[in-house]
Amino acid sequence: MIFSSKKLELAVDALSALPGIGRKTALRLALHLEKDDLNLVERLSESLIEMKTMTKRCTKCNNLSDEEICNICLQPHRRRDLICVVESIRDVMAIEETGQFSGLYHVLGGRISPLEGIGPEDLSISLLRKRVELGEINEIIMAISPSIEGETTIYYISKILEEHQLDISIIARGISFGGELEYADELTLSRSIESRIPYQSKNS
Amino acid sequence: MIFSSKKLELAVDALSALPGIGRKTALRLALHLEKDDLNLVERLSESLIEMKTMTKRCTKCNNLSDEEICNICLQPHRRRDLICVVESIRDVMAIEETGQFSGLYHVLGGRISPLEGIGPEDLSISLLRKRVELGEINEIIMAISPSIEGETTIYYISKILEEHQLDISIIARGISFGGELEYADELTLSRSIESRIPYQSKNS
Repeated sequence: MIFSSKKLELAVDALSALPGIGRKTALRLALHLEKDDLNLVERLSESLIEMKTMTKRCTKCNNLSDEEICNICLQPHRRRDLICVVESIRDVMAIEETGQFSGLYHVLGGRISPLEGIGPEDLSISLLRKRVELGEINEIIMAISPSIEGETTIYYISKILEEHQLDISIIARGISFGGELEYADELTLSRSIESRIPYQSKNS
Repeated sequence: MIFSSKKLELAVDALSALPGIGRKTALRLALHLEKDDLNLVERLSESLIEMKTMTKRCTKCNNLSDEEICNICLQPHRRRDLICVVESIRDVMAIEETGQFSGLYHVLGGRISPLEGIGPEDLSISLLRKRVELGEINEIIMAISPSIEGETTIYYISKILEEHQLDISIIARGISFGGELEYADELTLSRSIESRIPYQSKNS
Protein backbone atom coordinates (compact mmCIF):
# COMPACT_ATOMS: atom_id res chain seq x y z
CA MET A 1 0.00 0.00 0.00
CA ILE A 2 1.21 3.49 -0.88
CA PHE A 3 0.23 6.06 1.76
CA SER A 4 0.07 9.81 1.38
CA SER A 5 0.25 10.15 5.17
CA LYS A 6 2.66 8.46 7.58
CA LYS A 7 0.14 8.87 10.41
CA LEU A 8 -2.45 6.98 8.37
CA GLU A 9 0.10 4.25 7.66
CA LEU A 10 0.89 3.83 11.37
CA ALA A 11 -2.83 3.60 12.20
CA VAL A 12 -3.33 0.96 9.48
CA ASP A 13 -0.29 -0.97 10.78
CA ALA A 14 -1.69 -1.00 14.32
CA LEU A 15 -5.23 -1.96 13.24
CA SER A 16 -4.08 -4.73 10.91
CA ALA A 17 -2.21 -6.34 13.83
CA LEU A 18 -5.64 -7.28 15.21
CA PRO A 19 -6.85 -10.84 14.52
CA GLY A 20 -8.99 -11.20 11.39
CA ILE A 21 -8.28 -7.63 10.25
CA GLY A 22 -6.41 -7.51 6.95
CA ARG A 23 -4.75 -4.38 5.59
CA LYS A 24 -7.71 -3.46 3.37
CA THR A 25 -10.13 -3.69 6.29
CA ALA A 26 -7.66 -1.77 8.48
CA LEU A 27 -7.53 1.00 5.86
CA ARG A 28 -11.33 1.16 5.73
CA LEU A 29 -11.52 1.40 9.53
CA ALA A 30 -8.74 4.01 9.73
CA LEU A 31 -10.34 6.23 7.08
CA HIS A 32 -13.69 5.89 8.82
CA LEU A 33 -12.12 7.02 12.10
CA GLU A 34 -10.27 9.83 10.33
CA LYS A 35 -13.67 11.19 9.15
CA ASP A 36 -15.31 10.47 12.49
CA ASP A 37 -15.78 12.85 15.39
CA LEU A 38 -12.64 13.31 17.54
CA ASN A 39 -14.70 12.46 20.65
CA LEU A 40 -15.59 9.05 19.24
CA VAL A 41 -11.96 8.28 18.39
CA GLU A 42 -10.91 9.35 21.89
CA ARG A 43 -13.68 7.24 23.43
CA LEU A 44 -12.46 4.20 21.48
CA SER A 45 -8.82 4.78 22.47
CA GLU A 46 -9.62 5.38 26.12
CA SER A 47 -11.97 2.43 26.43
CA LEU A 48 -9.26 0.09 25.07
CA ILE A 49 -6.62 1.45 27.46
CA GLU A 50 -9.02 1.32 30.43
CA MET A 51 -10.09 -2.22 29.60
CA LYS A 52 -6.41 -3.20 29.44
CA THR A 53 -5.32 -1.44 32.63
CA MET A 54 -8.38 -1.51 34.88
CA THR A 55 -9.74 -5.05 34.51
CA LYS A 56 -8.47 -7.99 36.54
CA ARG A 57 -9.14 -11.70 36.91
CA CYS A 58 -11.79 -12.77 39.44
CA THR A 59 -9.88 -14.40 42.32
CA LYS A 60 -12.55 -17.12 42.55
CA CYS A 61 -13.29 -18.13 38.96
CA ASN A 62 -10.60 -16.39 36.85
CA ASN A 63 -13.26 -14.58 34.76
CA LEU A 64 -12.58 -11.02 33.57
CA SER A 65 -13.82 -8.58 36.19
CA ASP A 66 -13.66 -4.95 37.28
CA GLU A 67 -13.41 -5.97 40.97
CA GLU A 68 -11.62 -8.66 43.02
CA ILE A 69 -14.64 -10.97 42.64
CA CYS A 70 -16.69 -10.93 39.43
CA ASN A 71 -20.39 -10.14 39.37
CA ILE A 72 -21.32 -13.73 38.43
CA CYS A 73 -19.62 -15.15 41.55
CA LEU A 74 -21.34 -12.43 43.61
CA GLN A 75 -24.89 -13.27 42.48
CA PRO A 76 -26.59 -14.74 45.61
CA HIS A 77 -29.14 -16.96 43.82
CA ARG A 78 -26.54 -19.13 42.07
CA ARG A 79 -25.83 -22.72 43.13
CA ARG A 80 -22.41 -22.85 44.78
CA ASP A 81 -22.10 -26.66 44.52
CA LEU A 82 -22.09 -26.77 40.71
CA ILE A 83 -19.21 -25.46 38.62
CA CYS A 84 -18.97 -25.23 34.87
CA VAL A 85 -15.35 -25.33 33.67
CA VAL A 86 -14.79 -23.44 30.41
CA GLU A 87 -11.82 -22.38 28.31
CA SER A 88 -12.54 -18.69 27.91
CA ILE A 89 -14.53 -15.64 28.91
CA ARG A 90 -16.43 -15.92 25.64
CA ASP A 91 -17.64 -19.40 26.65
CA VAL A 92 -18.99 -17.97 29.93
CA MET A 93 -20.83 -15.31 27.93
CA ALA A 94 -22.23 -17.90 25.49
CA ILE A 95 -23.56 -20.08 28.34
CA GLU A 96 -24.95 -17.06 30.23
CA GLU A 97 -26.80 -16.08 27.01
CA THR A 98 -28.75 -19.37 27.22
CA GLY A 99 -30.05 -18.36 30.68
CA GLN A 100 -30.19 -22.08 31.59
CA PHE A 101 -27.20 -22.48 33.88
CA SER A 102 -27.50 -21.46 37.52
CA GLY A 103 -24.16 -22.63 38.92
CA LEU A 104 -20.78 -20.87 38.96
CA TYR A 105 -17.99 -20.92 36.38
CA HIS A 106 -14.30 -21.59 36.25
CA VAL A 107 -12.35 -20.01 33.38
CA LEU A 108 -9.24 -22.03 32.50
CA GLY A 109 -7.83 -19.46 30.10
CA GLY A 110 -7.22 -21.98 27.30
CA ARG A 111 -6.67 -25.71 26.90
CA ILE A 112 -3.62 -27.91 27.21
CA SER A 113 -1.84 -27.88 23.86
CA PRO A 114 1.73 -29.17 23.73
CA LEU A 115 1.96 -28.05 20.08
CA GLU A 116 1.26 -24.44 21.05
CA GLY A 117 3.41 -24.77 24.17
CA ILE A 118 0.46 -24.48 26.57
CA GLY A 119 0.89 -26.74 29.60
CA PRO A 120 -1.38 -27.29 32.64
CA GLU A 121 0.60 -24.68 34.59
CA ASP A 122 -0.44 -22.00 32.06
CA LEU A 123 -4.11 -22.60 32.89
CA SER A 124 -5.94 -21.84 36.16
CA ILE A 125 -6.09 -25.53 37.13
CA SER A 126 -4.46 -25.09 40.56
CA LEU A 127 -7.05 -22.39 41.38
CA LEU A 128 -9.78 -24.90 40.45
CA ARG A 129 -8.19 -27.51 42.72
CA LYS A 130 -8.19 -25.00 45.61
CA ARG A 131 -11.89 -24.31 45.04
CA VAL A 132 -12.62 -28.04 45.10
CA GLU A 133 -10.56 -28.51 48.28
CA LEU A 134 -12.86 -26.06 50.09
CA GLY A 135 -15.43 -28.89 49.90
CA GLU A 136 -18.42 -26.84 48.69
CA ILE A 137 -18.54 -28.36 45.20
CA ASN A 138 -20.57 -31.46 44.28
CA GLU A 139 -20.44 -31.48 40.50
CA ILE A 140 -18.18 -30.15 37.79
CA ILE A 141 -19.42 -29.83 34.21
CA MET A 142 -16.60 -29.73 31.67
CA ALA A 143 -17.87 -27.41 28.92
CA ILE A 144 -14.73 -27.70 26.82
CA SER A 145 -14.61 -27.83 23.02
CA PRO A 146 -14.52 -31.40 21.66
CA SER A 147 -11.02 -31.66 20.18
CA ILE A 148 -7.82 -33.50 20.96
CA GLU A 149 -6.60 -30.62 23.15
CA GLY A 150 -10.01 -30.40 24.80
CA GLU A 151 -10.08 -34.13 25.60
CA THR A 152 -6.54 -33.91 26.98
CA THR A 153 -7.53 -31.00 29.22
CA ILE A 154 -10.62 -32.84 30.50
CA TYR A 155 -8.57 -35.98 31.19
CA TYR A 156 -5.85 -34.04 33.02
CA ILE A 157 -8.32 -32.14 35.23
CA SER A 158 -10.33 -35.27 36.03
CA LYS A 159 -7.09 -37.00 37.14
CA ILE A 160 -6.13 -34.03 39.33
CA LEU A 161 -9.55 -34.06 41.01
CA GLU A 162 -9.84 -37.86 41.22
CA GLU A 163 -9.32 -38.09 44.99
CA HIS A 164 -12.20 -35.70 45.76
CA GLN A 165 -15.83 -36.78 46.20
CA LEU A 166 -17.10 -35.14 43.02
CA ASP A 167 -19.31 -35.84 39.99
CA ILE A 168 -17.61 -34.82 36.78
CA SER A 169 -19.64 -34.60 33.57
CA ILE A 170 -18.92 -33.38 30.06
CA ILE A 171 -21.37 -31.49 27.84
CA ALA A 172 -23.20 -33.65 25.29
CA ARG A 173 -21.61 -33.91 21.87
CA GLY A 174 -23.67 -34.64 18.79
CA ILE A 175 -25.41 -33.10 15.82
CA SER A 176 -26.47 -29.46 16.36
CA PHE A 177 -30.17 -28.67 16.39
CA GLY A 178 -31.07 -27.75 12.82
CA GLY A 179 -27.86 -29.43 11.59
CA GLU A 180 -27.98 -31.72 8.58
CA LEU A 181 -26.63 -35.23 9.12
CA GLU A 182 -25.08 -35.36 5.67
CA TYR A 183 -22.87 -32.35 6.45
CA ALA A 184 -21.74 -33.55 9.88
CA ASP A 185 -18.15 -34.75 10.12
CA GLU A 186 -17.58 -38.48 10.56
CA LEU A 187 -16.29 -38.27 14.12
CA THR A 188 -19.28 -36.26 15.36
CA LEU A 189 -21.67 -38.59 13.58
CA SER A 190 -20.10 -41.80 14.87
CA ARG A 191 -19.86 -40.39 18.42
CA SER A 192 -23.51 -39.30 18.30
CA ILE A 193 -24.58 -42.83 17.39
CA GLU A 194 -22.36 -44.28 20.12
CA SER A 195 -23.82 -41.89 22.74
CA ARG A 196 -27.41 -42.34 21.55
CA ILE A 197 -30.15 -41.25 23.96
CA PRO A 198 -32.95 -43.75 24.93
CA TYR A 199 -36.24 -42.56 23.47
CA GLN A 200 -38.81 -45.36 23.83
CA SER A 201 -38.33 -48.76 25.42
CA LYS A 202 -39.87 -52.05 24.27
CA ASN A 203 -40.85 -52.64 27.91
CA SER A 204 -42.74 -49.40 28.36
CA MET B 1 -24.48 -9.95 25.56
CA ILE B 2 -23.94 -10.43 29.28
CA PHE B 3 -20.62 -8.95 30.46
CA SER B 4 -18.76 -9.74 33.64
CA SER B 5 -16.79 -6.47 33.25
CA LYS B 6 -18.20 -3.00 32.52
CA LYS B 7 -14.82 -1.96 31.06
CA LEU B 8 -15.01 -4.84 28.58
CA GLU B 9 -18.56 -3.84 27.67
CA LEU B 10 -17.50 -0.23 26.95
CA ALA B 11 -14.61 -1.44 24.77
CA VAL B 12 -16.97 -3.74 22.84
CA ASP B 13 -19.46 -0.85 22.43
CA ALA B 14 -16.76 1.42 21.01
CA LEU B 15 -15.32 -1.24 18.68
CA SER B 16 -18.72 -2.32 17.36
CA ALA B 17 -19.42 1.29 16.34
CA LEU B 18 -16.83 0.77 13.57
CA PRO B 19 -18.19 -0.09 10.09
CA GLY B 20 -18.45 -3.81 9.37
CA ILE B 21 -17.61 -4.79 12.97
CA GLY B 22 -20.48 -6.61 14.65
CA ARG B 23 -20.68 -7.22 18.40
CA LYS B 24 -19.23 -10.75 18.15
CA THR B 25 -16.22 -9.51 16.19
CA ALA B 26 -15.87 -6.56 18.59
CA LEU B 27 -15.80 -8.99 21.53
CA ARG B 28 -13.14 -11.10 19.82
CA LEU B 29 -11.01 -8.00 19.17
CA ALA B 30 -11.49 -6.65 22.70
CA LEU B 31 -10.50 -9.95 24.33
CA HIS B 32 -7.50 -10.19 22.04
CA LEU B 33 -6.39 -6.71 23.13
CA GLU B 34 -7.09 -7.55 26.77
CA LYS B 35 -4.60 -10.43 26.50
CA ASP B 36 -2.19 -8.39 24.40
CA ASP B 37 0.81 -6.42 25.60
CA LEU B 38 -0.08 -3.01 27.11
CA ASN B 39 2.45 -1.36 24.77
CA LEU B 40 0.60 -2.66 21.72
CA VAL B 41 -2.75 -1.42 23.01
CA GLU B 42 -1.22 1.99 23.74
CA ARG B 43 0.38 2.05 20.29
CA LEU B 44 -3.01 1.36 18.69
CA SER B 45 -4.77 4.03 20.77
CA GLU B 46 -2.09 6.65 20.16
CA SER B 47 -1.85 5.98 16.44
CA LEU B 48 -5.61 6.48 16.06
CA ILE B 49 -5.59 9.75 18.04
CA GLU B 50 -2.51 11.02 16.16
CA MET B 51 -4.02 10.13 12.80
CA LYS B 52 -7.17 12.00 13.80
CA THR B 53 -5.47 15.10 15.19
CA MET B 54 -2.26 15.41 13.17
CA THR B 55 -3.34 14.76 9.58
CA LYS B 56 -4.76 17.44 7.31
CA ARG B 57 -6.03 17.78 3.76
CA CYS B 58 -3.51 18.65 1.04
CA THR B 59 -4.27 22.25 0.02
CA LYS B 60 -3.71 21.34 -3.64
CA CYS B 61 -5.49 18.00 -4.15
CA ASN B 62 -7.49 17.43 -0.92
CA ASN B 63 -5.72 14.10 -0.27
CA LEU B 64 -4.93 13.08 3.31
CA SER B 65 -1.50 14.43 4.25
CA ASP B 66 0.81 15.05 7.20
CA GLU B 67 1.91 18.40 5.71
CA GLU B 68 0.27 21.34 3.91
CA ILE B 69 1.00 19.71 0.56
CA CYS B 70 0.88 15.90 0.20
CA ASN B 71 3.83 13.84 -0.93
CA ILE B 72 2.16 12.93 -4.23
CA CYS B 73 1.75 16.61 -5.22
CA LEU B 74 5.39 17.19 -4.17
CA GLN B 75 6.88 14.46 -6.39
CA PRO B 76 8.84 16.36 -9.09
CA HIS B 77 8.60 13.74 -11.88
CA ARG B 78 4.78 13.84 -12.10
CA ARG B 79 2.94 15.46 -15.01
CA ARG B 80 1.26 18.66 -13.78
CA ASP B 81 -1.03 18.98 -16.81
CA LEU B 82 -2.98 15.77 -16.13
CA ILE B 83 -5.33 15.37 -13.18
CA CYS B 84 -7.22 12.28 -12.12
CA VAL B 85 -10.38 13.16 -10.21
CA VAL B 86 -11.40 10.50 -7.66
CA GLU B 87 -13.95 10.18 -4.90
CA SER B 88 -11.75 9.07 -2.04
CA ILE B 89 -8.27 8.59 -0.62
CA ARG B 90 -8.70 4.84 -1.14
CA ASP B 91 -9.17 5.42 -4.87
CA VAL B 92 -5.86 7.35 -4.98
CA MET B 93 -4.18 4.43 -3.23
CA ALA B 94 -5.76 1.90 -5.62
CA ILE B 95 -4.56 3.84 -8.69
CA GLU B 96 -1.07 4.41 -7.18
CA GLU B 97 -0.88 0.62 -6.61
CA THR B 98 -1.11 0.13 -10.41
CA GLY B 99 2.03 2.27 -10.89
CA GLN B 100 0.64 3.35 -14.28
CA PHE B 101 -0.52 6.89 -13.62
CA SER B 102 1.99 9.71 -13.63
CA GLY B 103 -0.26 12.76 -13.26
CA LEU B 104 -1.68 14.38 -10.14
CA TYR B 105 -4.92 13.65 -8.30
CA HIS B 106 -7.92 15.53 -7.04
CA VAL B 107 -9.87 13.95 -4.16
CA LEU B 108 -13.53 15.02 -4.18
CA GLY B 109 -14.35 13.47 -0.81
CA GLY B 110 -17.46 11.66 -2.09
CA ARG B 111 -19.98 12.00 -4.91
CA ILE B 112 -23.10 14.08 -5.36
CA SER B 113 -25.98 12.17 -3.79
CA PRO B 114 -29.22 14.06 -3.11
CA LEU B 115 -30.58 10.98 -1.31
CA GLU B 116 -27.72 11.08 1.22
CA GLY B 117 -27.88 14.88 1.34
CA ILE B 118 -24.47 15.33 -0.33
CA GLY B 119 -24.47 18.34 -2.65
CA PRO B 120 -21.66 19.79 -4.84
CA GLU B 121 -20.73 22.23 -2.03
CA ASP B 122 -19.87 19.25 0.23
CA LEU B 123 -17.20 18.11 -2.24
CA SER B 124 -13.93 19.84 -3.14
CA ILE B 125 -15.25 20.96 -6.52
CA SER B 126 -14.49 24.67 -6.06
CA LEU B 127 -10.89 23.75 -5.19
CA LEU B 128 -10.74 21.79 -8.46
CA ARG B 129 -12.07 24.82 -10.37
CA LYS B 130 -9.37 27.00 -8.82
CA ARG B 131 -6.70 24.52 -9.93
CA VAL B 132 -8.09 24.55 -13.47
CA GLU B 133 -8.20 28.38 -13.49
CA LEU B 134 -4.44 28.46 -12.90
CA GLY B 135 -4.19 27.26 -16.52
CA GLU B 136 -1.64 24.44 -16.00
CA ILE B 137 -4.06 21.58 -16.67
CA ASN B 138 -4.73 20.06 -20.09
CA GLU B 139 -6.68 16.92 -19.30
CA ILE B 140 -8.90 15.67 -16.51
CA ILE B 141 -9.63 11.95 -16.12
CA MET B 142 -12.80 11.27 -14.14
CA ALA B 143 -12.05 8.03 -12.24
CA ILE B 144 -15.42 7.93 -10.53
CA SER B 145 -17.45 4.78 -9.83
CA PRO B 146 -20.04 4.04 -12.52
CA SER B 147 -23.35 4.62 -10.72
CA ILE B 148 -26.17 7.15 -10.87
CA GLU B 149 -24.45 9.35 -8.29
CA GLY B 150 -21.13 8.93 -10.10
CA GLU B 151 -22.63 9.95 -13.46
CA THR B 152 -24.32 12.96 -11.82
CA THR B 153 -21.00 14.03 -10.29
CA ILE B 154 -19.17 13.69 -13.63
CA TYR B 155 -21.89 15.66 -15.42
CA TYR B 156 -21.87 18.43 -12.81
CA ILE B 157 -18.09 18.83 -12.85
CA SER B 158 -17.91 18.78 -16.65
CA LYS B 159 -20.53 21.59 -16.78
CA ILE B 160 -18.58 23.64 -14.20
CA LEU B 161 -15.37 23.27 -16.25
CA GLU B 162 -17.03 23.69 -19.67
CA GLU B 163 -15.66 27.18 -20.35
CA HIS B 164 -12.04 26.09 -19.89
CA GLN B 165 -9.83 24.68 -22.67
CA LEU B 166 -9.66 21.16 -21.28
CA ASP B 167 -9.98 17.52 -22.33
CA ILE B 168 -12.22 15.57 -19.99
CA SER B 169 -12.27 11.77 -20.15
CA ILE B 170 -13.86 9.04 -18.06
CA ILE B 171 -12.27 5.70 -17.21
CA ALA B 172 -13.38 2.79 -19.40
CA ARG B 173 -16.28 0.73 -18.13
CA GLY B 174 -16.77 -2.90 -19.09
CA ILE B 175 -16.20 -6.46 -18.02
CA SER B 176 -13.29 -6.91 -15.57
CA PHE B 177 -10.28 -8.90 -16.70
CA GLY B 178 -10.93 -12.47 -15.61
CA GLY B 179 -14.63 -11.69 -15.20
CA GLU B 180 -17.24 -14.09 -16.57
CA LEU B 181 -19.76 -12.62 -19.01
CA GLU B 182 -22.58 -14.70 -17.62
CA TYR B 183 -22.16 -13.17 -14.17
CA ALA B 184 -21.89 -9.55 -15.35
CA ASP B 185 -24.93 -7.36 -14.67
CA GLU B 186 -27.06 -6.35 -17.64
CA LEU B 187 -26.13 -2.68 -17.58
CA THR B 188 -22.39 -3.37 -17.59
CA LEU B 189 -22.80 -5.93 -20.37
CA SER B 190 -24.95 -3.72 -22.58
CA ARG B 191 -22.65 -0.72 -22.02
CA SER B 192 -19.60 -2.82 -22.85
CA ILE B 193 -21.16 -3.83 -26.18
CA GLU B 194 -22.12 -0.22 -26.89
CA SER B 195 -18.58 1.02 -26.13
CA ARG B 196 -16.88 -1.85 -28.01
CA ILE B 197 -13.22 -1.33 -28.92
CA PRO B 198 -12.09 -1.77 -32.59
CA TYR B 199 -9.89 -4.85 -32.89
CA GLN B 200 -9.40 -5.65 -36.57
CA SER B 201 -10.74 -3.72 -39.57
CA LYS B 202 -11.93 -5.25 -42.85
CA ASN B 203 -9.79 -2.60 -44.60
CA SER B 204 -6.53 -3.52 -42.86
